[in-house]
Amino acid sequence: MSTARLETFADGVFAIAATLLIIDVSVHAEGDELGRALLDAWPQYAAYAVSFLVIGVMWVNHHAAFTQINRVDRTFLFINVGFLMSVAFLPFPTRLVGEHLQDDGEQAAALAYGITMTVISLGFAAFWFYAAIGRRLIDERADQRRVTGISRSYLPGAPYSLAATLVALRNPTVSLVLFAAMAIFYVVESSLFGRADEGA
Amino acid sequence: MSTARLETFADGVFAIAATLLIIDVSVHAEGDELGRALLDAWPQYAAYAVSFLVIGVMWVNHHAAFTQINRVDRTFLFINVGFLMSVAFLPFPTRLVGEHLQDDGEQAAALAYGITMTVISLGFAAFWFYAAIGRRLIDERADQRRVTGISRSYLPGAPYSLAATLVALRNPTVSLVLFAAMAIFYVVESSLFGRADEGA
Amino acid sequence: MSTARLETFADGVFAIAATLLIIDVSVHAEGDELGRALLDAWPQYAAYAVSFLVIGVMWVNHHAAFTQINRVDRTFLFINVGFLMSVAFLPFPTRLVGEHLQDDGEQAAALAYGITMTVISLGFAAFWFYAAIGRRLIDERADQRRVTGISRSYLPGAPYSLAATLVALRNPTVSLVLFAAMAIFYVVESSLFGRADEGA
Amino acid sequence: MSTARLETFADGVFAIAATLLIIDVSVHAEGDELGRALLDAWPQYAAYAVSFLVIGVMWVNHHAAFTQINRVDRTFLFINVGFLMSVAFLPFPTRLVGEHLQDDGEQAAALAYGITMTVISLGFAAFWFYAAIGRRLIDERADQRRVTGISRSYLPGAPYSLAATLVALRNPTVSLVLFAAMAIFYVVESSLFGRADEGA
Repeated sequence: MSTARLETFADGVFAIAATLLIIDVSVHAEGDELGRALLDAWPQYAAYAVSFLVIGVMWVNHHAAFTQINRVDRTFLFINVGFLMSVAFLPFPTRLVGEHLQDDGEQAAALAYGITMTVISLGFAAFWFYAAIGRRLIDERADQRRVTGISRSYLPGAPYSLAATLVALRNPTVSLVLFAAMAIFYVVESSLFGRADEGA
Repeated sequence: MSTARLETFADGVFAIAATLLIIDVSVHAEGDELGRALLDAWPQYAAYAVSFLVIGVMWVNHHAAFTQINRVDRTFLFINVGFLMSVAFLPFPTRLVGEHLQDDGEQAAALAYGITMTVISLGFAAFWFYAAIGRRLIDERADQRRVTGISRSYLPGAPYSLAATLVALRNPTVSLVLFAAMAIFYVVESSLFGRADEGA
Repeated sequence: MSTARLETFADGVFAIAATLLIIDVSVHAEGDELGRALLDAWPQYAAYAVSFLVIGVMWVNHHAAFTQINRVDRTFLFINVGFLMSVAFLPFPTRLVGEHLQDDGEQAAALAYGITMTVISLGFAAFWFYAAIGRRLIDERADQRRVTGISRSYLPGAPYSLAATLVALRNPTVSLVLFAAMAIFYVVESSLFGRADEGA
Repeated sequence: MSTARLETFADGVFAIAATLLIIDVSVHAEGDELGRALLDAWPQYAAYAVSFLVIGVMWVNHHAAFTQINRVDRTFLFINVGFLMSVAFLPFPTRLVGEHLQDDGEQAAALAYGITMTVISLGFAAFWFYAAIGRRLIDERADQRRVTGISRSYLPGAPYSLAATLVALRNPTVSLVLFAAMAIFYVVESSLFGRADEGA
């Protein structure tokens, strides 16, 4: 049983969720105030960029995992459906953050964003560890050190997201900056230190 | 004649219909009322989750069917177009349920949801039985017991959906719970009892 | 040079354009008037179904054409981009028809629908005849009678669409019925008479 | 390490971004004024067509590049994510141009469009030159003259876009015409002079 159709479906959800983010970027202004309104809308662009990057990172990691995974079972398919359900939810809190970054709704928006990110992180961990523990769905030819290395690299995601979410109870702006930093750090780190053969 | 392009098109519709569901989740509130409004919007999240799961189940089953089917004909393509038309319609009654679960529109919304689900179930049955009866499009190497087993597992879907729809005439909340239960039951049952080689 | 990536891109546009149609189906009503409003919205459902079917037919025909075509060139890619641009435009006049079928805007909506359908038909003809004339992009192993048969079957599309559009100048309802009839006729005819090997 | 999944993801984003453009085309009018309103909305159709064409050109070029590229690394994946982020942003300034082409917001809209196009052009250049310089990701069998030819053809994109953007400071209409002309020129030129084997 191949993994191809799961990868196609997942790629579809990643691509659509990322591309849909732009629907929620909107500016309503009379003609002569459009320039100013476009500048004031910077929180929407920032939220768009961070969430697009988060989905891109998820896609790269999902992709990398399938260099080690070579079969699926029903439970695994539904774990993926659940994980993708959380990823596809991200446009909603992204819109909230873009709209409320500069008003009294910032804390509620940051909490919604953080909870969604935490669920996504947990979903990704469930996806990977279901496949990796006991090498349940791992390719027989895969190097165990490589599998363990991937496992180790995915461990911090959920605790970090949870911590960043809790920070929003005190300071929602810092919480959002922590999520942006996580995505940027991941891109920089894996570009600098990722090996060419490292599942990418 | 291969089935690949039909599967690609179907995967696209499944992925898009599921991912579009989030567009209809929306909360409009002033900043300081956002937290409360987000909590009050739980029917929208529940409707999102159930419909995403329903589409995920449809995708898994469609996927499983193609482990037995190895060719297509024109009629089969159009049966699939009709089936996908009903799946792609699901975001509309989902939105209705999310908006009206707590007002006087609940019955109309539940009926719209139920009718759509019944049409989807009938469409899926038409899709499978057109291929399976007389082994019209079934792979010559497929085990007939396996084909019969799939047929048997798909029989209850449409009657169950019709019954749950009729329940909405008396109690729309119960009707909606029955649809949520069906999706969750399917996931749990097939994860627990599905064999690793069972078309998944 | 293979045709695979063009087919993937086209399948994506077909699947997305069809699935996006549901975004434009909307009913706004207070709870206790929702049932009536849902019934009154039938023109939207009809428009959804006809346009979904039209896109499905386009997908099947595009699919069938690629059983004969086995290479591409730049001009052909851009003809496809233009054709897909017209297909992806269809949700807009579909929305107009769904909204204005029962008011004074029906004629304008029917003309917009008809013009779009005519452009789609011309685009499809350009796509096919660019490939088929002189067998420019046709597989060397393809049977010329089969190619000629496909050419003949695609000839009536654009004149029919143009005629149905002109009918809207006198009677927009009849015009719309003619487009619905074309899609349904195509499905029935090709299901009844299509050979199993006929590019499907 | 193959390039297939990156191409699938990119094709998804291209197809979705192009198809989403139609969501932003909208006309609100009473029935008897619909005809006039549809005619007055021509800037929206023009913006739709130009942006669809731009995305189509990007897709063809991305496609052509992968006839020379045969492997990926992490940095390259994230360069692609960044490039696709800019492409997926295009529906937003397209909507602004469609809405404000005939009011005082034209200059702001044209600047937003031009800046987005410039970022897209820079992203595409980063994508190609990262792969091509030192033949980092180029297929060993690829002809260096061919690679150099592609590099040369991509050099003018970003400076041209930047220049056209700056023009908007004086005359936004001319700026927008320059972007439309670029897309049309590219299609005509590559159709007339593109060799059949030229990566298409």
